[in-house]
Amino acid sequence: MPSDRPQPAFVLVRPQMGENIGAAARAMWNFGLDRMRIVAPRDGWPNPKAVAMASGAGRLLDEAQLIETTADGVADCAYVFATTARARGLTKPVFSPERAMALAAEKIAEGQNVAVLFGPERAGLENDDIARANAIINVPVNPEFASLNLAQCVLLTAYEWQRAAGEVVHERMDMAKSDWAEQIEIEKLAEHYEERLGEAGFFFPEHKAESMKTNLRNLWSRMPLTRADVQMLHGVLRQMVRWKERG
Amino acid sequence: MPSDRPQPAFVLVRPQMGENIGAAARAMWNFGLDRMRIVAPRDGWPNPKAVAMASGAGRLLDEAQLIETTADGVADCAYVFATTARARGLTKPVFSPERAMALAAEKIAEGQNVAVLFGPERAGLENDDIARANAIINVPVNPEFASLNLAQCVLLTAYEWQRAAGEVVHERMDMAKSDWAEQIEIEKLAEHYEERLGEAGFFFPEHKAESMKTNLRNLWSRMPLTRADVQMLHGVLRQMVRWKERG
Repeated sequence: MPSDRPQPAFVLVRPQMGENIGAAARAMWNFGLDRMRIVAPRDGWPNPKAVAMASGAGRLLDEAQLIETTADGVADCAYVFATTARARGLTKPVFSPERAMALAAEKIAEGQNVAVLFGPERAGLENDDIARANAIINVPVNPEFASLNLAQCVLLTAYEWQRAAGEVVHERMDMAKSDWAEQIEIEKLAEHYEERLGEAGFFFPEHKAESMKTNLRNLWSRMPLTRADVQMLHGVLRQMVRWKERG
Repeated sequence: MPSDRPQPAFVLVRPQMGENIGAAARAMWNFGLDRMRIVAPRDGWPNPKAVAMASGAGRLLDEAQLIETTADGVADCAYVFATTARARGLTKPVFSPERAMALAAEKIAEGQNVAVLFGPERAGLENDDIARANAIINVPVNPEFASLNLAQCVLLTAYEWQRAAGEVVHERMDMAKSDWAEQIEIEKLAEHYEERLGEAGFFFPEHKAESMKTNLRNLWSRMPLTRADVQMLHGVLRQMVRWKERG
């Protein structure tokens, strides 16, 4: 069963190579989409090459709706996007994938069914397919080199759906097992260095000593140090002292 | 020569299959990036399979910097991102591709060199590579199915670079040759329909006639009609009248 998660249907219109259908399934499932519709695939259905390529996302193929015409493929949808690589001279709004999927998320939140059409590999959607869409999605590729394949187009659109669905964590800290050091530990580290470096004659000349100490203290507190970092920095200093004491 | 456009360098670390190097070059050039560095490719360099796959983006391979170690690959960079599929337990900030490329754009605007590391296909970057990076990029894929390949990871990162570089047009109208209709044309269209439909007995019953006329007028003005649309709608009505007159 497809997931209950609200999402657009991705409709592959007259796809040619089974491998590309499988790769499109993988691209969708990478971003949690699992409602695929397939209109009149060239090589029939099911397609063993699609299954082989989809490994891990084969469920999407098993559950895909096989449909005869583009019109039937979007019959239950209130809003339909058509992906195209170039302008077609049809009077229709053209959205970036980002804007399109933001709009899709709004419509889906209102309970509407939304579909995205992807054309055949060689020539893309026909104008007759596009005339059934409310808007066009145009991936903003380098005008000198526009060579996205079907699965890449599906990948970028699915990626933008996930962003629009608000499920992306933009920033976090991957922590080692150690915790962050507390201020008291930073303080002791600073004291340790100040003391030993003082003995070593580091704070010279005399009239600069105070500002050198301030700068050094500031250096420790500026760095995001873990407890393990602090222990390592203590160890570095102790080892230098030991080395010195060995003569 | 690589373009003058400020951009991050994409560093492929110990890539294995030539096909994947070629596909990565295509993915980069789709979004206008052309500074590739290659660290210790498994099958030597140049690689004919990479060239065959890169078709159209072969210049990136010709101009790629071949480098022996990851350290040399980022030696001139002030800020380095490492792409990983999973957390590594190194204490480092982890960014979404979007946040990472926004940060890259800021640093590049300040004149800093920025690099993004991509690991070998099978196992990804080693912790020793990642320890050379300032931050991690983690593509937020479906935790049940994380199967991005090297070129897809390059594609999504390059796509986000282009978004961060602010070169994306989010919305425009793809126009047919016709212009938008002016208000006077909409007005005449409304009058034409109102007159003919009045003759045809459409505005019935009498006490609803005014509100029906208002709703019809509102329908025309609500639609984004081109001059060609208006002509076609006039034609539709004229044809119905002719058909009626033929008896």
